[in-house]
Amino acid sequence: MLVFILNAGSSSLKYQLMNPVIKKVFASGICERIGIDGVLKHEYGDGKELKLEIDMPTHKEAIEAVLSTLTVGEGKVIDSIDSIQATGHRVAHGGEFFQKSTLVTEEVIAKIEALIPLAPLHNPANILGMKICQELLPGKPNVAVFDTVFHQTMPDYAYMYALPYDQYTKHKIRKYGFHGTSHYYVSNEARQMLDKKRNTRIIVCHLGNGSSVTAVLNGKSIDTSMGLTPVQGLMMGTRSGDVGAGAISYMMKQEGLDIDQITELMNKKSGILGISGKSSDLREVLAAMHDDERCRLAVDMVAYNIKKYVGSYVAALDGVDALCFTGGIGENSALIREIVCTGLDGMGLVLDPIKNNKNRNDARDIATNSSAARIFVIPTNEEYVIANDTYKVVMES
Amino acid sequence: MLVFILNAGSSSLKYQLMNPVIKKVFASGICERIGIDGVLKHEYGDGKELKLEIDMPTHKEAIEAVLSTLTVGEGKVIDSIDSIQATGHRVAHGGEFFQKSTLVTEEVIAKIEALIPLAPLHNPANILGMKICQELLPGKPNVAVFDTVFHQTMPDYAYMYALPYDQYTKHKIRKYGFHGTSHYYVSNEARQMLDKKRNTRIIVCHLGNGSSVTAVLNGKSIDTSMGLTPVQGLMMGTRSGDVGAGAISYMMKQEGLDIDQITELMNKKSGILGISGKSSDLREVLAAMHDDERCRLAVDMVAYNIKKYVGSYVAALDGVDALCFTGGIGENSALIREIVCTGLDGMGLVLDPIKNNKNRNDARDIATNSSAARIFVIPTNEEYVIANDTYKVVMES
Repeated sequence: MLVFILNAGSSSLKYQLMNPVIKKVFASGICERIGIDGVLKHEYGDGKELKLEIDMPTHKEAIEAVLSTLTVGEGKVIDSIDSIQATGHRVAHGGEFFQKSTLVTEEVIAKIEALIPLAPLHNPANILGMKICQELLPGKPNVAVFDTVFHQTMPDYAYMYALPYDQYTKHKIRKYGFHGTSHYYVSNEARQMLDKKRNTRIIVCHLGNGSSVTAVLNGKSIDTSMGLTPVQGLMMGTRSGDVGAGAISYMMKQEGLDIDQITELMNKKSGILGISGKSSDLREVLAAMHDDERCRLAVDMVAYNIKKYVGSYVAALDGVDALCFTGGIGENSALIREIVCTGLDGMGLVLDPIKNNKNRNDARDIATNSSAARIFVIPTNEEYVIANDTYKVVMES
Repeated sequence: MLVFILNAGSSSLKYQLMNPVIKKVFASGICERIGIDGVLKHEYGDGKELKLEIDMPTHKEAIEAVLSTLTVGEGKVIDSIDSIQATGHRVAHGGEFFQKSTLVTEEVIAKIEALIPLAPLHNPANILGMKICQELLPGKPNVAVFDTVFHQTMPDYAYMYALPYDQYTKHKIRKYGFHGTSHYYVSNEARQMLDKKRNTRIIVCHLGNGSSVTAVLNGKSIDTSMGLTPVQGLMMGTRSGDVGAGAISYMMKQEGLDIDQITELMNKKSGILGISGKSSDLREVLAAMHDDERCRLAVDMVAYNIKKYVGSYVAALDGVDALCFTGGIGENSALIREIVCTGLDGMGLVLDPIKNNKNRNDARDIATNSSAARIFVIPTNEEYVIANDTYKVVMES
């Protein structure tokens, strides 16, 4: 089963060609600057890379370029697009409509369309990707894999905001959560790495450009840090995370900004970038933290925020069996992992500094042998989840 | 030392007459409906009560009525207002200007005035109270006791929002926290009740109409749930507590409301009232929770919110020695205490259900004997802190 995986953004598009049954990736890449000019970066074979400048006025030309690159010329990995048996689409927001990955039909597209107000940048691009694949890969099934689905198991007292109840009934305003495929993948790996199989209490810290923490009880998400939109929760590269409502109205008045400008400010100019004033990339900020007070503050804030979420989810889970780090920062920053874990000994989480500082790329346990709970670093694999869900949905349909 | 304590709101005014040295209250009461008509409820002697309808067009007539009631007629407790040696004013917002309780001067009033944008309802009323006391009690010192001061010891990584840094430098947008006198009083009592005197890690849940949680390390606040304004943090009677920024902008658009209307909605129509649709009073909602699904949800949300904050502060404090409940709900709702503490055993907090359910009014330990950390119920006494601070400031001046 060869699955084409598509993650369409507003001006970019990531893809992979994968056989989920044997977990083998044949090619992957990204189209950037769609609608501006167009660049295609393509990886294939054993780490070979290709960079092509191709005019991409719309997502259609981008996907055409990808399919052509997969089948013709230097980057070729398959003889014909006929080999592609299905396409799995990452979809940002599934609202309350979708409780699992779903075969794309007109009805499904209509529902994803209805959710555009909740994800105005992402859902339209995702729908575009589906429609283009229906056209370019006729007869091949498309499957929608939602970033929100894994969190649909949250109990009401975790997902409700304490706003007037009709804001939920009228507008479906509630916490949804994101990074679902990553939290699912990592928590599932962690469950297999644990000795116990029952009452597994797992906390996953997905720390990348976007970051979120999820509490997973017996394989089900029971709480997560992102909300109606991905701006809530942890401090991120350019997103603020949790901010008091009073600060939002005060900023609007003091700066004379409207709510769209505030949303822009909180999504694009805040977080690590906003505090450090230097970069949204934690690596650069970590490198400068000893000489730059604002970089030091940014690092302290990032770690303190994560630590507090971990503590709150240990409470929510009634204890913890494994704390997992994943995503670019989670997998690679030993220092952030160290600061986060400092002071969590009382909760049974004791980091082994030597294990933590070893440079490795595999899933591993970095807790001391005597630590009551495990601390795992687990490389995430969202594409695998999308491909595998696509495979399963197609097989069942 | 006889201290007059004033807590002036926009249309109400609470007062006490107290000797902080012997911790004795001579009278207390409240003026309501100031600017509308005027009602004075006065308690004196051993539980005697007086209710007077007095015209109160402004705060001045209200304070005149109080001073007159204290000295003349049925509710009289002193012969002359000359016996009052100082007035202690509760002030809502001290910003970063004030690190301790302060003798009121023109300069101090100017600073409290400068902070009005941060507390538009409360600081003007507080200033009014000071000016009226300067006039009605000439020559008697006034002391400002701030609700924010206790939290001024928070480290920067706890009080900063991850917004662009200039929002802090330009507008002082940060977390301040409130209920400072209560958190100070209760944590100080708890320290005395603990066996250990060093490295005391205390969490105070002040749960009333307004609610907040504070982490107190060695007597100093290191984090608190309220923010720039009191709408942040826990779900309260009518306040929402933490809500994602995305929900705010989405509500504005879906409902066509401006930010002032949203602020009103989040402060007055949310929280327990918003979810239950029944009442902002947790007692009524608790009574209805078995028959009313939304009341059940409101109770679950209240308790779950508190539990998560407790967990996050156990992480922040690197463990916990005492968890304290105070305020109307904290002191009186055994059920809320029970739900909050369920599942915190792993953090060393084990509630004794029999002790928890005993109806008592004194400070007490409701943890099991073998619980590693203590769980205290401690009646708060904000007025005593205001009176005592007033006494100390006057003595030092």
